[in-house]
Amino acid sequence: MGQFAIGIDGGGTNCRAAVIDQTGQILGTGKAGAANILSDLENSLINIVESARQALATAGLDPELVRQLPAVIGTAGANVGNYGKRVEGALPFASSRVVTDATIALQGALGDADGIIGAFGTGSVYNARRDGKIWGIGGWGFVIGDQASGARLGRDLLERAVLAFDRVTAASPLTDAVMAEYGNDPERVVEFAHASKPKDFARYSPIVFEYAAMNDVVAMDIVKTAAKAITESLDALLWPECPSICLLGGLAQAYRPWLDARHKTLLAEPRGDVLRGAIDLAVKLLRDGEGNRG
Amino acid sequence: MGQFAIGIDGGGTNCRAAVIDQTGQILGTGKAGAANILSDLENSLINIVESARQALATAGLDPELVRQLPAVIGTAGANVGNYGKRVEGALPFASSRVVTDATIALQGALGDADGIIGAFGTGSVYNARRDGKIWGIGGWGFVIGDQASGARLGRDLLERAVLAFDRVTAASPLTDAVMAEYGNDPERVVEFAHASKPKDFARYSPIVFEYAAMNDVVAMDIVKTAAKAITESLDALLWPECPSICLLGGLAQAYRPWLDARHKTLLAEPRGDVLRGAIDLAVKLLRDGEGNRG
Repeated sequence: MGQFAIGIDGGGTNCRAAVIDQTGQILGTGKAGAANILSDLENSLINIVESARQALATAGLDPELVRQLPAVIGTAGANVGNYGKRVEGALPFASSRVVTDATIALQGALGDADGIIGAFGTGSVYNARRDGKIWGIGGWGFVIGDQASGARLGRDLLERAVLAFDRVTAASPLTDAVMAEYGNDPERVVEFAHASKPKDFARYSPIVFEYAAMNDVVAMDIVKTAAKAITESLDALLWPECPSICLLGGLAQAYRPWLDARHKTLLAEPRGDVLRGAIDLAVKLLRDGEGNRG
Repeated sequence: MGQFAIGIDGGGTNCRAAVIDQTGQILGTGKAGAANILSDLENSLINIVESARQALATAGLDPELVRQLPAVIGTAGANVGNYGKRVEGALPFASSRVVTDATIALQGALGDADGIIGAFGTGSVYNARRDGKIWGIGGWGFVIGDQASGARLGRDLLERAVLAFDRVTAASPLTDAVMAEYGNDPERVVEFAHASKPKDFARYSPIVFEYAAMNDVVAMDIVKTAAKAITESLDALLWPECPSICLLGGLAQAYRPWLDARHKTLLAEPRGDVLRGAIDLAVKLLRDGEGNRG
């Protein structure tokens, strides 16, 4: 069994796994429930293994091979206390290497190179690798963090829509469209906001960019404020020789034109996604001849 | 019984009542639970009446006199649908006049004069009376509204403290103090923020002003942003002949030095609080000879 390994993205929404050979070719993929090792270790372990078993089955291999193959698992919280070691000890793989979600995201986007990644989806978070050392900022959630995330863009938009309704700040085609959606009743906007989760607010992020591209004054203001937050965070991570910055997540493309010129020149397309990062590390594990029991 | 009347502030936290005579002198006061007529009409009615009965007892009068005296009640939601009329119809007073919380707040602060009031506590809201006509803006709650409120100041502070921890924006003695309170652990700040209600965030507002007075850069930035929001809201209400602006609520004094010069010149001390406003209107009711059954 020295020719196969498993790479797993143990994500907060679901786990994705891939069985690969020594060349990195994907033989099969699998998917299972969420991994949140800090809040639900037991189910996280179940879902990590289930995604791997599915990947083996899809590859036409025996799911029981999980016990004979090495695996690399990237998951949030792997660097908190002894959680990473606990997960490594509890998993059935021939050998397990548990790393942070940032590690596989960086590996997926940058390969072995140094650089910075910024992820913009419902939330936002930044990670950097410099001389092989990884560190990150942001990702502190919707209420007091996640600047420039889809959720914050949506929240900003609803705030501006209600301020425009009160004639406190300028209305625009975008704020008019939002108020029309709620029957021009600010009470209903407030009701939505108080009942909503970050992903509900984030649903508004595409139209913010859409209207910003049409020079809507409010949309441009919201996006510029978000882009300024991105600039500040990238500057906090950047070093003179930093070779590249990769933007990831659903809003990555939308933010490109709004970035600071100094950062735009460093922009690079990510090589691959987080699962690709886990696969990369699994291939290394195979080539280094580590952890094979079969 | 033509010489007494009752004024009631039917507030969202509690009801306060006063029995007054024709000169406006307060003979007794009472207090009971909250009035939220839109969300809990039944208990609101109970609490309104209970506060009045207590006021009569404190004045050395028979609580049963509620049935023989006229009352003015100011409460939020009185202008929504037929809620005001429903409350008037359900109360036991000889005659009831139910008005909005804005009406008694304006009456308390400005008497019969035109002007603007801005209230800054855990939340924020603005009302104006021009040629006797009342209108208001703001008060849309913590998530997407209540700019410059205590809750928003606190939320802004925690956001800045975590950004400073990440070295994204400048640290200051204030952000250092906040992070120290949480053992310099941003996870704990985030945990607090996600578990907190507006009043929990608002607990930070006094130290924001305290540090701003000591030229703390972050505190000044937060207060200036809030003051700009106040300027925008006051400008939305202001008209050329507006005689005065009154600031109300726990943060009223703290904001005075930060206001725009154009608004500072119009600042006036409020004549009285919201209960004073209800009392004022009750005196008018007495003098006009309305609603006495006794």
